[in-house]
Amino acid sequence: MTEFNKFFEPRSVALLGASSDIRKWGYRILHNIVTGGYTGRLYPVNPKGGRIGKLEVYKSLEDIPEVPDLAVIVVPPAGILQAIKECGQKGIKACVVITAGFAEVGKEGASMQAQMVEIAHSFGMRLIGPNCFGLMSPSRMLYAQMANAFPPTGPIAVVSQSGNVGFTIVRRAMSTNFGCSRLISTGNEADLHAEDFVEYLSDDSQTRVIMCYIEGFRDGRRFFEITSRASMKKPVIMIKVGETEAGSSAAHSHTAALSGSDTVFNGVCRQAGIIRVYNLEELMNVGYGFLCHPLPQGNRVGIVTLGGGWGVLAADACSKLGLEVVKLSEPVLKELDTFLPAWWSRNNPVDLVAGAPPDAVPRVIEILAKYEQTDAVISLGLPTPAVEWVTADSMGADGDQKIDAALDMLVSSFKKVKDLSIKYNKPVIFAAEFPVPKGDIRFQHRAMSALAQQDMVCYSMPDEAAMVLSKMVGYSRYLQSRGRAV
Amino acid sequence: MTEFNKFFEPRSVALLGASSDIRKWGYRILHNIVTGGYTGRLYPVNPKGGRIGKLEVYKSLEDIPEVPDLAVIVVPPAGILQAIKECGQKGIKACVVITAGFAEVGKEGASMQAQMVEIAHSFGMRLIGPNCFGLMSPSRMLYAQMANAFPPTGPIAVVSQSGNVGFTIVRRAMSTNFGCSRLISTGNEADLHAEDFVEYLSDDSQTRVIMCYIEGFRDGRRFFEITSRASMKKPVIMIKVGETEAGSSAAHSHTAALSGSDTVFNGVCRQAGIIRVYNLEELMNVGYGFLCHPLPQGNRVGIVTLGGGWGVLAADACSKLGLEVVKLSEPVLKELDTFLPAWWSRNNPVDLVAGAPPDAVPRVIEILAKYEQTDAVISLGLPTPAVEWVTADSMGADGDQKIDAALDMLVSSFKKVKDLSIKYNKPVIFAAEFPVPKGDIRFQHRAMSALAQQDMVCYSMPDEAAMVLSKMVGYSRYLQSRGRAV
Repeated sequence: MTEFNKFFEPRSVALLGASSDIRKWGYRILHNIVTGGYTGRLYPVNPKGGRIGKLEVYKSLEDIPEVPDLAVIVVPPAGILQAIKECGQKGIKACVVITAGFAEVGKEGASMQAQMVEIAHSFGMRLIGPNCFGLMSPSRMLYAQMANAFPPTGPIAVVSQSGNVGFTIVRRAMSTNFGCSRLISTGNEADLHAEDFVEYLSDDSQTRVIMCYIEGFRDGRRFFEITSRASMKKPVIMIKVGETEAGSSAAHSHTAALSGSDTVFNGVCRQAGIIRVYNLEELMNVGYGFLCHPLPQGNRVGIVTLGGGWGVLAADACSKLGLEVVKLSEPVLKELDTFLPAWWSRNNPVDLVAGAPPDAVPRVIEILAKYEQTDAVISLGLPTPAVEWVTADSMGADGDQKIDAALDMLVSSFKKVKDLSIKYNKPVIFAAEFPVPKGDIRFQHRAMSALAQQDMVCYSMPDEAAMVLSKMVGYSRYLQSRGRAV
Repeated sequence: MTEFNKFFEPRSVALLGASSDIRKWGYRILHNIVTGGYTGRLYPVNPKGGRIGKLEVYKSLEDIPEVPDLAVIVVPPAGILQAIKECGQKGIKACVVITAGFAEVGKEGASMQAQMVEIAHSFGMRLIGPNCFGLMSPSRMLYAQMANAFPPTGPIAVVSQSGNVGFTIVRRAMSTNFGCSRLISTGNEADLHAEDFVEYLSDDSQTRVIMCYIEGFRDGRRFFEITSRASMKKPVIMIKVGETEAGSSAAHSHTAALSGSDTVFNGVCRQAGIIRVYNLEELMNVGYGFLCHPLPQGNRVGIVTLGGGWGVLAADACSKLGLEVVKLSEPVLKELDTFLPAWWSRNNPVDLVAGAPPDAVPRVIEILAKYEQTDAVISLGLPTPAVEWVTADSMGADGDQKIDAALDMLVSSFKKVKDLSIKYNKPVIFAAEFPVPKGDIRFQHRAMSALAQQDMVCYSMPDEAAMVLSKMVGYSRYLQSRGRAV
């Protein structure tokens, strides 16, 4: 068992600093491990002994009848060095230090942090933290963390130099029913750095995209080398903050990170194939894009829209992001002419003005996808207009059944488009508004959840679809430039 | 009664082209007017006569026993000129032409459109459209529109050169419980232009912010003059599309608009005090900002955060947007020292690390707001941590009551911060995640609705709060530069 497996697939966990005081982290973390349903053996440790709930509390590590795979440490700063030493003496090789108050608060803390690593390494032990939120590994139902969020197993891995941002990412994924493979809050990175986890996750079969929140690097060259290798295996999507003086100062207070030059970092991203995004919304949207769509071969896009304005917004956004809104060739126009009304615009975006048949959206998508002249399709509006009508008509006694029927109809219409996308091996990216039957927003929520279960997503705004596609094109070109067929 | 009052406060409406065929716009618009609860007199007109539902259909305008204030026209293109002539002869002075197929489809259509205006003007009649979605005026319960959305009365006015984008804006406002004063879909603007409505709305007592979606100008100079006057009265927030060749081409197909140079337009915005935004998300967020907060005097911001990473994201975003994340002075730091734990960062953002008392958020906000050195506060995280605990504990039989209690607690904690904001006359802008008790997203929805009812809003991401504040600072500076105290 490698050291990383001890972090993410531990058969047993010791929690040093476990507490029965609900106001303390030693309680909340224990509570989260238990609530999360961890199936391995759990050993709370506190010199006071006794019980917390059903669990026996061990007075010291020595009393534990085995060598735990993982130790999670929440003891106060003054007791940290001793705790790590005891872990080492016990033979523990993987340790998460939640406790804060080290390099981020000043010189003395930094020196203690260095000693922490020295002690750990003298025993062949590796450390996550200090000053971190912990980690989760849903496949093992392990949620050794400060925050109260229990995502299901799924393809998204999160490496975050901020615990709270890491959990924001997880909660966002949960809200659309995407699950997580692993989350690591790296904290001050006294020993293991963000890039170590990127490397591990690039070979982790449960992870399909790696989302990173980065405040700064401890070793820029190593970061670059590792992510360059990782990005050839799966998308590495990254927010890098501390771009400004104010942000950089905040980052230093936060995790003692040195942010470095933004221009240099952009160069690093280009060369390492890192997909850089600029806020959390983009991070999520781009992540879903990679999970749900084949990679585009190039940047030529066909757009179909149920409304003119959305089409203009999308065309503008595409152009600004380097996507080519292709001029449609005569054969394409002629094929569209066969079922669109005489006065349609004969332009890209294909604007489905009033008068188009109800199944126009999938028909246009197929025509745009099957011709050589596009690499991707953006579809604005739901794939079946019937849904709006059924949900609008949901006020009667059988209203809930009608809404359920609309949901089924919606998901199956998306599924048909997904089949087209697979058939032609081109991404078809949706943005649409969902109906809100009876003013209840849960229809959208349920629809998004049902879509996510089949690796499908629908964005809410046209510029989001364009942004996601542009990032996918960028990544595809990177892979192609390194000789990888996409 | 002015011509604009006839559009927005009509005592009677004639619908030319009314239909009982559910597939036709002549049915759907009639249906929307009726569903919306219009309280004036409604006259469906169709040569076939008969009845649609409970309504008598008039065979011609002549048969209507009064001169309707407003005519809404949905007859096919070939019948338009005749219909407008008949409206003129009847003495109608305000007319909305929904029908499409004019300047946006070519030369012949453009010529017909010109004739349309000529005929209207010969009778002293004004036109909205053609090729538009109609208008709504919730204060009169008038929803003479193609789309199925019935927002309550409220402070947001929408002027849109795209009907579907206009309704996207309305639905977004509805989803957070903000109501609308008026919406105008201006279509091809054969007669009345977007700027005419901006002018009307700037004097409309029901409107507090004006949101515009603009594809192009028919008369740039006039647009500039009118919006310059309007922006001194209330915020005019605008998306301008057609910035790129692809977008511009799509806009021309859509409403025959000529987009013009983007650089020129940016200059126009600066000089006219227009608040320019770049996507619909920004449009909504900035609009809510103006509705909910006093204007900042300057660009100096204090940030309080419940998590380090969010603070870094906000500080970065503020700096990039020209806001100054002020260095906190010793008196401020000393006052914060009195209740924050010894290891707090003594920096801006004020990072409420573990160990701060539960009422720390409002206390820090008050300290940041009352000192001269800030013009605004950004608060990251909910104002009371108790909500998370109560909702997390909502699994038992009394779960729903606990969630209701949490909702009340949340709203009252926001209200207290709002009182501080009023006391010190500085905006306090929130971004936070909401708890999702039992996995049900409605808590957030209900909370946002309850907040909106008291003119409060909470953004979901730190960079959104920074963006909104930056736009408010820009507008405040514009007003100040024109001699207006803010």
